[in-house]
Amino acid sequence: MDAHEVVEKTLARLGDGEGVWISTFTAAELHARAAEIDPDLPLAGVPFAVKDNIDVAGLPTTAACPDFAYRPERNAPVVQRLIDAGAIAVGKTNLDQFATGLTGARSPYGSPESVFGGGLIAGGSSSGSAVAVANGSVAFALGTDTAGSGRVPAALNGIVGIKPTRGLLSTLGVVPACRSLDCVSIFAPDLAMADRVLRVATGTEPDDPWSRSGRRPLIGSPRVGVPETLDFFGDAGQEKAFARFAGDVTVDIGPLLEAGDLLYRGPWVAERLADLDEFLTNNPDSVLPITKKILQAGYAFSAADAFRAQHRLQELRRQADEIWQKADVLVLPTIGTTYTHAEIAADPIGRNLNLGRYTQFANLLDMAAVTVPNGFTADGRPASLTLFGPAFSDETLIRHAQTLHAETRGAN
Amino acid sequence: MDAHEVVEKTLARLGDGEGVWISTFTAAELHARAAEIDPDLPLAGVPFAVKDNIDVAGLPTTAACPDFAYRPERNAPVVQRLIDAGAIAVGKTNLDQFATGLTGARSPYGSPESVFGGGLIAGGSSSGSAVAVANGSVAFALGTDTAGSGRVPAALNGIVGIKPTRGLLSTLGVVPACRSLDCVSIFAPDLAMADRVLRVATGTEPDDPWSRSGRRPLIGSPRVGVPETLDFFGDAGQEKAFARFAGDVTVDIGPLLEAGDLLYRGPWVAERLADLDEFLTNNPDSVLPITKKILQAGYAFSAADAFRAQHRLQELRRQADEIWQKADVLVLPTIGTTYTHAEIAADPIGRNLNLGRYTQFANLLDMAAVTVPNGFTADGRPASLTLFGPAFSDETLIRHAQTLHAETRGAN
Repeated sequence: MDAHEVVEKTLARLGDGEGVWISTFTAAELHARAAEIDPDLPLAGVPFAVKDNIDVAGLPTTAACPDFAYRPERNAPVVQRLIDAGAIAVGKTNLDQFATGLTGARSPYGSPESVFGGGLIAGGSSSGSAVAVANGSVAFALGTDTAGSGRVPAALNGIVGIKPTRGLLSTLGVVPACRSLDCVSIFAPDLAMADRVLRVATGTEPDDPWSRSGRRPLIGSPRVGVPETLDFFGDAGQEKAFARFAGDVTVDIGPLLEAGDLLYRGPWVAERLADLDEFLTNNPDSVLPITKKILQAGYAFSAADAFRAQHRLQELRRQADEIWQKADVLVLPTIGTTYTHAEIAADPIGRNLNLGRYTQFANLLDMAAVTVPNGFTADGRPASLTLFGPAFSDETLIRHAQTLHAETRGAN
Repeated sequence: MDAHEVVEKTLARLGDGEGVWISTFTAAELHARAAEIDPDLPLAGVPFAVKDNIDVAGLPTTAACPDFAYRPERNAPVVQRLIDAGAIAVGKTNLDQFATGLTGARSPYGSPESVFGGGLIAGGSSSGSAVAVANGSVAFALGTDTAGSGRVPAALNGIVGIKPTRGLLSTLGVVPACRSLDCVSIFAPDLAMADRVLRVATGTEPDDPWSRSGRRPLIGSPRVGVPETLDFFGDAGQEKAFARFAGDVTVDIGPLLEAGDLLYRGPWVAERLADLDEFLTNNPDSVLPITKKILQAGYAFSAADAFRAQHRLQELRRQADEIWQKADVLVLPTIGTTYTHAEIAADPIGRNLNLGRYTQFANLLDMAAVTVPNGFTADGRPASLTLFGPAFSDETLIRHAQTLHAETRGAN
């Protein structure tokens, strides 16, 4: 299939799913792009979607807030790397406004449903990117992941989500959520594609102060840690799905859960205000009520509160790092339970926190994470695992996820 | 000289200088200690002083605030390492209250004068430790250094001050100033002694979340960077003293100065409140008016301000790190000018900021620093240089300082 055929096939699928895209290039623009691609490039003619908080030249960046929208002059460096490798940026995908939320239900551009239907949320904040990959519209997609936005929607749509080590993929040209924690993430149908994309997308950017490089040696047969007990919020199906998985050692995830609580229940909410304060103050009616409510919670925290929480986080980091003495990889369910749009509407903040329980600590504790499908519950809902490792363990996580994925594929 | 003779000699010098000591062990306690020392230990019988914000079992820790005082049950680990190596802790030394200040004039226990007299301040906050070393009462002393408290008093008393890489010496058992920045520092009459002490004092502490280890390869002939221009606050004598020193390349210290301003003029003041807020609120009359004024400035900053400043610092770190592409070592005057107690009394906050101009960025930018004497001005005031390097370059700094020190000793 040549690049023009790929474009045609992609265009035919753009109507799949509701609320998936915020903007797309025209057929003429996509064919013009297809015509210029060198077929020898590593991602030649591979179509991809970009979450609409990442700059793509030629399309507006909205962050799911129409009044916030701007037209970037250049591609975010991470997007540019993919384009330089021959990939075709198709358009911009829906998200929870300002990437704040894990449900996909906080956007004026619609609330996508999981590809598995049944009223299930698509998850967020990278809702559109995950659905566009899961329904086959594109071969991969970029998301972002501060608290779990690159993993929760992967879990709810039965695909792979890579939340690389913080700084490995540049966040230049990304609308900040929490600058010190933000990551660009990758969605793909399988680990092989995700890994191909990661290799191309990885690269330090001298102008990005958060950009980092590094690599831990690959561990071929990692010791796998699992927690002694977990809260599935009463979801016996998800509990059973995770029980199929056995680790080598049990580890204490108490410090992880406490660290995670700092993100939405503690002063880190105010990190979002560091960038959004001015817009929120000047355009209070432009922000969704629920998003405004969450962001405004940040005003309650003083600078002393922020430092105090950072001191506590430093202690928790030290405790969490002890996990890597016993285990090379930690495996958790990506989400403890799934929710329908009706269930989220009934408790939009509490259930959002539940969705983040096993994701939101990762960036605070400088972990890499890889999310893979783990079959289905008896009632047909997707199950998912996430593998965690210390910073720069990405390669070990991906390799080991490939092993696990082969073992659990189709299990139910 | 055996340990008992050392004790006798030390006891005889404890009256030297005013406002140097806050508490000391009794003659009986010191002799009992001398009696138990194994003469083969690396610091056998070497007397040292401890800044009174570092715990020494058997003496109160006051942080120069009598109502704050407590009696620690155990030695701070860094003190314990020195005692285990045979050194004799003599007592606790004066400091600017809560280690907040660079003058030595902010303590209810007196305001020490520089050993060079003339009404010159001793500098702070580790005022007593520096004077006790400079006047020969002890062989070395521990200080702390968040903004320059281990370097400014070394400069004003003509001795060596080592501000090691953050985390190399444990801050467990130290009254926090800014937890994320605090360092334990070393004062000694010469680099050889400072280096001996550093080797013994260095060690990771599993219970200290800020403890770090690491080491850069020693660079035998480092490229030395100096700034193009410097502000000596009108002090021609200090300017002339620094002009004797020539570097290999000029570097831009703009990002360093901007980062330094975040410490006292920006949200980092609130980091001090993270620990002191409760004491200050409950005991407003127990804190010196000037210290209270500085600490209370932290209440004006929101959590969003703190994160915003941290984001700016991340950018400045990246810019500052470019220095290490051109130079292995950066050399600056430790202080641009000296002040008398009368001059500080006339402008206690503004002149304190001047004293920190070339010191206060180091911990924010994760630099190691070594301060050495640089002769005298024509009117007999001490001049001083500080060598800076990236984290874990301590060994290169000390070795190169030895070379410089040999070259400049006695110059005037």
